[in-house]
Amino acid sequence: MEPARIVAGLRALVPADRVLDDRQVIQGYLQDQAEWAPYAQAATVVRPRSTEEVRAVVAFAAEHGVPVVPRGAGTGLSGGANAIEGCIILSFEAMNAVLEINESEPYAVVQPGVVNDDLRAACAERGLWYPPDPASAPWSTIGGNVATNAGGICCVKYGVTRDYVLALEVVTGRGDVVRVGRRTAKGVAGYDLCGLMVGSEGTLGVITEITVRLRPERPPERTIAGYFDSIVAAGRAVSAVSASGVIPSALELVDRHCLEAVDAWKNMGLSTEADVVLLGRCDANSDEDAGVIRRCFDEAGASWAAVSTDEQEAEALFDARRLAYPALERLGPVLTEDVCVPKAKVPEMLARIEKTAAVHDTLIANIAHAGDGNLHPLLITPIGDDAARRRAQAAFEDIISDAIELGGTVTGEHGVGLLKRDGLRREVSPLVLDLHRAIKNALDPLGILNPGKVFS
Amino acid sequence: MEPARIVAGLRALVPADRVLDDRQVIQGYLQDQAEWAPYAQAATVVRPRSTEEVRAVVAFAAEHGVPVVPRGAGTGLSGGANAIEGCIILSFEAMNAVLEINESEPYAVVQPGVVNDDLRAACAERGLWYPPDPASAPWSTIGGNVATNAGGICCVKYGVTRDYVLALEVVTGRGDVVRVGRRTAKGVAGYDLCGLMVGSEGTLGVITEITVRLRPERPPERTIAGYFDSIVAAGRAVSAVSASGVIPSALELVDRHCLEAVDAWKNMGLSTEADVVLLGRCDANSDEDAGVIRRCFDEAGASWAAVSTDEQEAEALFDARRLAYPALERLGPVLTEDVCVPKAKVPEMLARIEKTAAVHDTLIANIAHAGDGNLHPLLITPIGDDAARRRAQAAFEDIISDAIELGGTVTGEHGVGLLKRDGLRREVSPLVLDLHRAIKNALDPLGILNPGKVFS
Repeated sequence: MEPARIVAGLRALVPADRVLDDRQVIQGYLQDQAEWAPYAQAATVVRPRSTEEVRAVVAFAAEHGVPVVPRGAGTGLSGGANAIEGCIILSFEAMNAVLEINESEPYAVVQPGVVNDDLRAACAERGLWYPPDPASAPWSTIGGNVATNAGGICCVKYGVTRDYVLALEVVTGRGDVVRVGRRTAKGVAGYDLCGLMVGSEGTLGVITEITVRLRPERPPERTIAGYFDSIVAAGRAVSAVSASGVIPSALELVDRHCLEAVDAWKNMGLSTEADVVLLGRCDANSDEDAGVIRRCFDEAGASWAAVSTDEQEAEALFDARRLAYPALERLGPVLTEDVCVPKAKVPEMLARIEKTAAVHDTLIANIAHAGDGNLHPLLITPIGDDAARRRAQAAFEDIISDAIELGGTVTGEHGVGLLKRDGLRREVSPLVLDLHRAIKNALDPLGILNPGKVFS
Repeated sequence: MEPARIVAGLRALVPADRVLDDRQVIQGYLQDQAEWAPYAQAATVVRPRSTEEVRAVVAFAAEHGVPVVPRGAGTGLSGGANAIEGCIILSFEAMNAVLEINESEPYAVVQPGVVNDDLRAACAERGLWYPPDPASAPWSTIGGNVATNAGGICCVKYGVTRDYVLALEVVTGRGDVVRVGRRTAKGVAGYDLCGLMVGSEGTLGVITEITVRLRPERPPERTIAGYFDSIVAAGRAVSAVSASGVIPSALELVDRHCLEAVDAWKNMGLSTEADVVLLGRCDANSDEDAGVIRRCFDEAGASWAAVSTDEQEAEALFDARRLAYPALERLGPVLTEDVCVPKAKVPEMLARIEKTAAVHDTLIANIAHAGDGNLHPLLITPIGDDAARRRAQAAFEDIISDAIELGGTVTGEHGVGLLKRDGLRREVSPLVLDLHRAIKNALDPLGILNPGKVFS
């Protein structure tokens, strides 16, 4: 169907200002943050203001066989929100209300376009806490977080987005509005359709309302820093923490390439002190647990380890972790990997990545949610160097192969989108892919919801 | 297909001793613990010893259109494992090995027939802990726990079975063996088929292997007891604990009918002291948190509240809770309800149950996982009194209606099975039931897996 007819058809159904036809404005909605992921030209972008408007758009798309691509803030790293030729992009920026915060259960009901940090701030005002904290939290939306089952730094103790989604309002591929899940603490009435929607990357339904479980505010965190001379020593420290019985509220790893890039930019002097930095946090029995983690670091051979005594100093260390990504981007486009391996295999996986970098002559820096075994190798290529990009692409595939070989998964928290479709096919059996197709056909029989994402 | 032909056909595929044809032995496999739930005559019971044997049985059933009913220990309370006329019952008692306990991740891999307490004991030997603790833990199997997404006492802090299932090996309705899920701490590769299987009560696949996440052993618990003169005061205490920011590791309620039945049997003298007993537990910052919970009890108007100083005394109090069910069974068959309401609605729900008991002239006692809003009204009818049973049945329906009206669910942790099929239909919309049917058709296109359970 021609873009002009799609725009006209939609403007007959929802207020005209919701439906964009300015090609330049539309251009800003065509891709997410995934380097190298392909995208095409959308017919239009619709910015709905209500579930009813979403329903009308999806029903129109179903009637005319037009693909629909739901989009949060576009901070995804796998191409899941990238435009498909001739599609309708449903952007939720105008559905960004926190509808209810229930303090007694406690839960929050939000529209999909609410920014993660905004929800967290609204909860904090009432002494409550929404834990999932992806690095994109200042920009990414709860709708996008739910669609990708986003993780973050505190999942090592508090779990991922799925663990907090109690209920969803969803528009199905037939244009029906359904409510799945519940608002009670427990419930086993029927299939877990709510959990099935979480992480399905817009391929099974368009999310229009989200109910998330909240927790009481947590006690203040203590930070423990450890400097190590080798990846192996840092890996030993991670295993020691895991075996100690203390569950840290964060356990992050930053490697020498990241430290050097941060130093080159901000001159923090880290790379002269350490080859690898581990940052642990704990928020229960803080003093005692922080001591246990520090001892784990020491006994694993840290060249220096300490429990931070002031919060500013601790934040500065976490800044080094946060700055790694932009510091590396100064060197060229960064492709973010997202493999997750058994925790005990973190040192071996890091060693294999180092080898892969050498084999393919590619700069690969590493940040990792080490306590979860979730690694983010960052592949950097100089702008415009096609040969380097091909080498990096080969390295990307090798990292995926190694992760699978070590019993890991091709994506720990970013999603399959477009970049990991091959990886998914390599990770699961053909029979399991068939089950995916059967579920997709069951919930989106016309195949209009984000088609071609996750699997083809 | 005739039972004799089914037995002969199966004995050609698996060792003959796996396939039972002694009608009297088969009789012991026809129903679970759900009072009033109908059951029929099975063609045979098969006790497989390997995934391959399960696959062969399901493939035979698929070829000949014979229903398959998977069965753990038969401790279910909704009729989910009850026999269907002419079915093959797959009993997992001989597949009861703990295959692996991985201490570094940590996780355990088990066959479905492992008894919950046996897994817990095996984990404890290694300083690890499998939290889900249904009341049936001494008898029920992990396979059954997964099929029903079983809860328990510690879920108020540690979550339900689904929160611990990392991966499953499953035989689909076509007789294919598939592996879903992962063994890493995080992972978002594809749809959450593993989570979808959990709680699907044997209608989407037959579980042949389970990987569960483990936790480090927890610190010892402290017990806080509170005696209250009214349900309303106890309800206030529950709300106060919820608002305090302390997350108890148990928060159980036992009402006067239970206390009286326990006293009549064991003469513990509880019913003269209290109308309602609340039992709280905490396992982090024990002294401090126990003090907070005790203050919540006091301020809500407890006639007596104390932190238990010795473990034996604490166990005795929890014994009163455990003994409630057998004590009530001495009065007649007990039908166990399992509604879950928003925590703030617990007092109102309990008041409505009291009214329902009066209206239908039925003895209804209450134990409740109060901290989750999960109530277990126990409806007792004298043996052989049909009129009383009809009145109890009407009361059962009214309790379901009230739970739905208060924003709750018809089943918090026992499952839909046969007893809550009507309830499910009342709780979710017809469109959501259609989605259930679509998923069922997608994964069990021949309709042989526990047909007629959950929905018809």
